[in-house]
Amino acid sequence: MALVVIGGVAAGLSAAARARRIDPRLEIVVLEKGPVISYGACGLPYFVEGRVNEATDLVVYTPEYFRRERKIEVRTGARAAAIAHPRREVVLETGERVRYERLVIATGARCDTGGIAGSAQPHVFTLHTLDDAERLRRFIAEKRPRRAVVVGAGYIGVEAADALRRRGMRVTVLERSAHALLRDDAEFTAAVRRTLEQHGVELCCGVNVTTVEADRVADVSCDLVVLACGFRPNAVLAAEAGVELGRSGAIRTDERMQSNLSGVYAAGDCAEVTHLVTGRPTYIPLGTTANKTGRVAGANAAGGRERFPGIVGTAIVGVFGVGFATTGFSVAQARAEGFSPVGARIEALARPRYFQGTKTTVELVADRATGRLIGGSVIGEEGAAGRIDVIAAALHSRMRVEDFEQLDLAYSPPFAPVWDPLLIAAQQLRKEI
Amino acid sequence: MALVVIGGVAAGLSAAARARRIDPRLEIVVLEKGPVISYGACGLPYFVEGRVNEATDLVVYTPEYFRRERKIEVRTGARAAAIAHPRREVVLETGERVRYERLVIATGARCDTGGIAGSAQPHVFTLHTLDDAERLRRFIAEKRPRRAVVVGAGYIGVEAADALRRRGMRVTVLERSAHALLRDDAEFTAAVRRTLEQHGVELCCGVNVTTVEADRVADVSCDLVVLACGFRPNAVLAAEAGVELGRSGAIRTDERMQSNLSGVYAAGDCAEVTHLVTGRPTYIPLGTTANKTGRVAGANAAGGRERFPGIVGTAIVGVFGVGFATTGFSVAQARAEGFSPVGARIEALARPRYFQGTKTTVELVADRATGRLIGGSVIGEEGAAGRIDVIAAALHSRMRVEDFEQLDLAYSPPFAPVWDPLLIAAQQLRKEI
Repeated sequence: MALVVIGGVAAGLSAAARARRIDPRLEIVVLEKGPVISYGACGLPYFVEGRVNEATDLVVYTPEYFRRERKIEVRTGARAAAIAHPRREVVLETGERVRYERLVIATGARCDTGGIAGSAQPHVFTLHTLDDAERLRRFIAEKRPRRAVVVGAGYIGVEAADALRRRGMRVTVLERSAHALLRDDAEFTAAVRRTLEQHGVELCCGVNVTTVEADRVADVSCDLVVLACGFRPNAVLAAEAGVELGRSGAIRTDERMQSNLSGVYAAGDCAEVTHLVTGRPTYIPLGTTANKTGRVAGANAAGGRERFPGIVGTAIVGVFGVGFATTGFSVAQARAEGFSPVGARIEALARPRYFQGTKTTVELVADRATGRLIGGSVIGEEGAAGRIDVIAAALHSRMRVEDFEQLDLAYSPPFAPVWDPLLIAAQQLRKEI
Repeated sequence: MALVVIGGVAAGLSAAARARRIDPRLEIVVLEKGPVISYGACGLPYFVEGRVNEATDLVVYTPEYFRRERKIEVRTGARAAAIAHPRREVVLETGERVRYERLVIATGARCDTGGIAGSAQPHVFTLHTLDDAERLRRFIAEKRPRRAVVVGAGYIGVEAADALRRRGMRVTVLERSAHALLRDDAEFTAAVRRTLEQHGVELCCGVNVTTVEADRVADVSCDLVVLACGFRPNAVLAAEAGVELGRSGAIRTDERMQSNLSGVYAAGDCAEVTHLVTGRPTYIPLGTTANKTGRVAGANAAGGRERFPGIVGTAIVGVFGVGFATTGFSVAQARAEGFSPVGARIEALARPRYFQGTKTTVELVADRATGRLIGGSVIGEEGAAGRIDVIAAALHSRMRVEDFEQLDLAYSPPFAPVWDPLLIAAQQLRKEI
């Protein structure tokens, strides 16, 4: 019995490690196309900024570690060119064939450069791999750019803007859509804009970048460009082997993370998962989901029986010290999903006034028909992660607003006010329903 | 129609304010025995410490505010001596009678001095009212005590110890039971002890203080004593009027916060509420519950129809910058409540290592028979409040460990690690079940 895992970052390595726990004797091979494995991709912006000093700080495990401690063979520089499923073989670029009984596809995603012309120029970067980040940091050290454009105001784009600004550059973010951080919510985007502008970063929405010129993007002159236009699943290899893709273009899986092909699992940024608020497949590539789906895929591929019910779309990003956190749907997104949404947004102190609490903004969204919470956002310098996680837990259990309003949350002056902003938002929302 | 509220702090004023919202024309009278109303009692230790500068910083509203803005008559120095329910009258100490149609009893709690002899000496304090705190602060300024004993290692006791230590005193905490912060959990208490000792505060458990002498308590010499032995509900007035008390000695209420007497409601530290983990009445006097139950009692007393389902026992206290948070039951407490509990405790980083995350301890407790989460605790310098609130939300919705393990929690290096400590604890607990 041999398990082959294609991909050696979050999902692939979680799968391999979990498979080993389930079956101590299983032969496990991980094929990674790049030169390193297991790096904290979400730390890349902080490496560019310099807060993380060494690239090696982001590398959690080495192939040697996996070989020695887990008896897992990890091959770097091993790029899969095809999956010959009838013969149960992965064909490498070199022509070598690696046999499997079970296969986990964790091929990840690639930066969507959106057909932008001029992206191959030396001053144009993406921020997806450790190599990307090292090249960008080297470029900054050597060329000392003064004016940067970031294309895309998603998580990576905004984090990159933060990092480049802290490196002393003037930074402009150009975003195609009308909103930032993938949240179709004008007030949320306005808050992102305010925070960026307070720190000297310009955000221009509704700008469709088609070309990067040598010294400018759109009408913004610059000597450094970061493309952060989102991600596309790497699913061609799978699709060519007969693996079914979903509407998003990512691999469709069941609750066991198995694809339509028996014994072939998928996990991480190449796979769809279920959105628990709608019950429908969705594609939201994030590190947390990659680790979780990898773990489940690996367990099941090794003969275990685990399930991954799905996600609720929780995310947080830090922008100059302010947390911008979202889960579920905004009002506009919920409407697009077929709900009759109603939302309430409040601003309140994250701690008592006499304890120098700062302001936090909480938005809650409910479905008018059922009274069920279906989304929320939290913005603040303190407690944004904890508060969005409470909303996320409520989405998981399909909690109604009137029950959420009664939550027995922790209170003590150094930590929270006696009426938590979450509860104030719920009271407000119940009035609106 | 007249509503009378006995008590002008958290529960009483929440009731009055909410009643006004429900019925703009209702005659509302609040009777407060003390000289001030609406103070942040939970801020008292920080006033003693000096972090909160002025006593007035803790006073949220004045009687004038309520009269002018809410058309609520707030009478300070008005001590109720009896409730003559057949005549629907509150009899004041002065002999004056105040008629009501509806009554909210929010008489609060008093410090349980546990029959300790010598508690009337000038160097012995409790920390319950603004006056207590002002007298203590004056004493510290004038007498410059050097050695303090705190009797009781509950929330107030530990906060008082923290405050007095920061004022430069040597501090010893003497606790009758074997555990600190009301958590029957040896490891939790050991963590409290470690944090106290790191900051030079001694914690002695199993010490039954019966007498405070002029210069010592038990064998600890001292020139200042704070008694923090817990609270007893002020329910005599109610009981004498025929209001039924529960086993705790606090007023028994239904989901509408109504007592056994029609039209008579109770709220705050004098009332029992339902513990949602057991479904049984409990007495846990805390500010959050006082505000919530006051709000519901006031709404219903004014003709509204609101409910207070209950609490799960969430609390947090800061000890020299470390948050100690609990909800539901510890293993020992759960066993005493009739569960077959199983617990798991893990230590993990609150943020990624490369982002200088500090360690946090998470314990989760489940009922072996059902797999349902029934308690938890979180200790840490970062994120303890947010994490305990996620566990609290799970207790509210009777979540099972295997569902908790799948929570889609927010991740980004400045805020949390990719595997949140909550999820690591849940994975560990599922192995133990």
